[in-house]
Amino acid sequence: MTDIKAGLIGFGNIGAGVVRMLQDNAGVIRKKTGTGIVLKRIADLDITSDRGVAVDPACLTTDVNQIFNDPEISIVIELIGGYEPAKTFVLKAIASGKHVVTANKALLALHGDEIYTAAAAKGVEVQYEAAVGGGIPVLSAIKGNLAGNRFGSVFGIMNGTCNYILTRMTQEGADFADVLQNAKELGYAEPDPTFDIEGTDTAHKLAVLASLCFGTRIDFGAIYTEGITAISGIDIRFAEQFGYRIKLLAIGKQTDDGQLEVRVHPTMIPQDNPLADVNGVFNAIRLAGDFVGPVMFYGRGAGQNPTASAIVGDIIEISRSITAGVRSRRAAPLGFQDETIATLPLKPMEEIVTKFMLRFAALDQPGVLAGIAGALGLRGISIESMVQTTRHNGGQAVPIVIMTHEAREGSIREALAEIDRHDFICEKSRFIRIEDNLQ
Amino acid sequence: MTDIKAGLIGFGNIGAGVVRMLQDNAGVIRKKTGTGIVLKRIADLDITSDRGVAVDPACLTTDVNQIFNDPEISIVIELIGGYEPAKTFVLKAIASGKHVVTANKALLALHGDEIYTAAAAKGVEVQYEAAVGGGIPVLSAIKGNLAGNRFGSVFGIMNGTCNYILTRMTQEGADFADVLQNAKELGYAEPDPTFDIEGTDTAHKLAVLASLCFGTRIDFGAIYTEGITAISGIDIRFAEQFGYRIKLLAIGKQTDDGQLEVRVHPTMIPQDNPLADVNGVFNAIRLAGDFVGPVMFYGRGAGQNPTASAIVGDIIEISRSITAGVRSRRAAPLGFQDETIATLPLKPMEEIVTKFMLRFAALDQPGVLAGIAGALGLRGISIESMVQTTRHNGGQAVPIVIMTHEAREGSIREALAEIDRHDFICEKSRFIRIEDNLQ
Repeated sequence: MTDIKAGLIGFGNIGAGVVRMLQDNAGVIRKKTGTGIVLKRIADLDITSDRGVAVDPACLTTDVNQIFNDPEISIVIELIGGYEPAKTFVLKAIASGKHVVTANKALLALHGDEIYTAAAAKGVEVQYEAAVGGGIPVLSAIKGNLAGNRFGSVFGIMNGTCNYILTRMTQEGADFADVLQNAKELGYAEPDPTFDIEGTDTAHKLAVLASLCFGTRIDFGAIYTEGITAISGIDIRFAEQFGYRIKLLAIGKQTDDGQLEVRVHPTMIPQDNPLADVNGVFNAIRLAGDFVGPVMFYGRGAGQNPTASAIVGDIIEISRSITAGVRSRRAAPLGFQDETIATLPLKPMEEIVTKFMLRFAALDQPGVLAGIAGALGLRGISIESMVQTTRHNGGQAVPIVIMTHEAREGSIREALAEIDRHDFICEKSRFIRIEDNLQ
Repeated sequence: MTDIKAGLIGFGNIGAGVVRMLQDNAGVIRKKTGTGIVLKRIADLDITSDRGVAVDPACLTTDVNQIFNDPEISIVIELIGGYEPAKTFVLKAIASGKHVVTANKALLALHGDEIYTAAAAKGVEVQYEAAVGGGIPVLSAIKGNLAGNRFGSVFGIMNGTCNYILTRMTQEGADFADVLQNAKELGYAEPDPTFDIEGTDTAHKLAVLASLCFGTRIDFGAIYTEGITAISGIDIRFAEQFGYRIKLLAIGKQTDDGQLEVRVHPTMIPQDNPLADVNGVFNAIRLAGDFVGPVMFYGRGAGQNPTASAIVGDIIEISRSITAGVRSRRAAPLGFQDETIATLPLKPMEEIVTKFMLRFAALDQPGVLAGIAGALGLRGISIESMVQTTRHNGGQAVPIVIMTHEAREGSIREALAEIDRHDFICEKSRFIRIEDNLQ
């Protein structure tokens, strides 16, 4: 059996991890595939910097066409990230008849449909396990052994930066800005962390996951996305007081009416929910299938080595197809036959029904509670419990925190808008969604 | 595309679940495979009892040869369990050129090697995801996306009956015998629970997992197997006092010297270890790969529906191979090429090094601690902490509990044998292994 040849586009941190894993574990990979897997070409604009791995300089090129035009190369690994030129390169690789492995969640979330269609037409595989959950093999499981299930939900913690920040805010009582600054210094947050802390990265991953679980195209722009920048130490302390922890969750659900809920936002979950103990840079993804029931996957959601594990896993799976001499069994990139992919309607956020924690900053004067409770009651929002912690003298605002029973989000927003028109309200009122019964 | 035909041997609880899943989810399965999957024949000695699922009576047969001899049937599902006639049937199915799906961990743990060899020679697949962890797709992950890793360890909670009993003993302070009796009444334990509570079922699963992770044959008889029948409420309370929880763990490790540790026994793990919160009938399996790092899988480890999910998942994967028109990419049943499977040496239990909790029942008299500490010190066993809780008047035994630093198990056994020869020792001294740093 001749070696299988791959080409790598993008020789950054993750790319160097892939190179090292293919070198260090060549023996075990050969035992499992029956073939050698050789990185024949590595393309990057910078081919002089030291990446801490030994590569034959003859492999390196600044001309990506040396990969597309090489008939020996059957697998192209795209690790440059972002939309362009990644999209052009992936489509070119497919057009050249090469299988593609990518970790590019942004690309797939926005242009997956176009890429999968091109791949199906050409009869090549597009694999992307590393796009969600780093080294956690959750996408393979959904497409593979769990495929006989209808999934009711998929949710989880999918961004290590946000989880690291929220974990430290919870454990140390620290404030968002301070932890973020420190996280940057320690390398747990990018110099520009916007994509992470605003929830965009999590939404990219949710788009990929929800497509797989529900067999649907997802309009990325329609995913409700709210990051963690507005979460304060006060929110976290009140949540703890009520028995909850705040996590940035990605949530996908198919409701009984056939609509999808696809949303990313800070979420209060009970402290005894297994996700509540997923701390630091770890990720966890939970699925509910109609037969398998709840299943959870946990592991390192980012980093050079775990991400390399997922990418090399995809390369191995494709190599097995090549060795078997077939157009892959898995060519359908969503695990569904292409012609069956639907476009399920997304439920508008106003229609979401959940419990809420409401937080008001109000003057301590007669009529405040009546005003708040009245606006809630008028819209059928019922109160489960309430805390008004401290009582100041004079005209200082005191926090009032209310836990509601299940309510429409639209009603909550209307009630808060009405309440915020009162003079006794000192700052914009806040709400955090609660998920008590995520299955 | 014509439908793929399967034959089921064993129409019990799990078999009925498979029938129902193939019926209920036929639509989604077709969307994911492009074909229908039809159960053409169901063989069982009892073809009259109602299993709660609708089947065409013409499908039912008491003659298993109607499955082997039917050229239309390409997949045989073996769900009768036990060694015989399951082994004969599986080998006959393979000899008839049929792919095999089984949930039979006992069969694979003892006769896997013979079955895999026969399957490889015949070019058919043997899939067995349901054999370990019920619906949790951990075997697929090891053979699939995680395949590029060298695994340092695999361990977890793999028996729902034991975990249910230990969970209730921990939460209620109840005794083993009482909980077991109640578990039988509730259907969480078999009428004869020996295989579960003595650890045999867990050892079967560990044999399968360790073979996959380390690419080795495992001599099932050489697996150290200790169940939970000797665990008392006192053990659990002392463990809690020291910050630990007691779980029946299956542990597989490859040590630096190339030897394997493969063992099943009650184990004390820190209360903040994620496995400590895996309660009731849930299973969790944790792996450590050299690149992926720690990964954990969690879900329902038994039951009709989760087990059906894993079996149907295997059927789907095989169907995709058949549809692709190939001898499977995955024919190597251990994920390794057959000729590379090793027979790694198992480390003798006396050579295991870990921490221990020792519990003595001793008379409260001078010289006791000196006698115990002397026997330990003589063998280089150092004491981390000690508790002597109550002081009785007169000649009653008091419990003395000692936490050791890391020590050889052989040394511990020798020390306890010496200590037990003293007159001040009132009953056989006990030890429970501690795993502080399972990675």
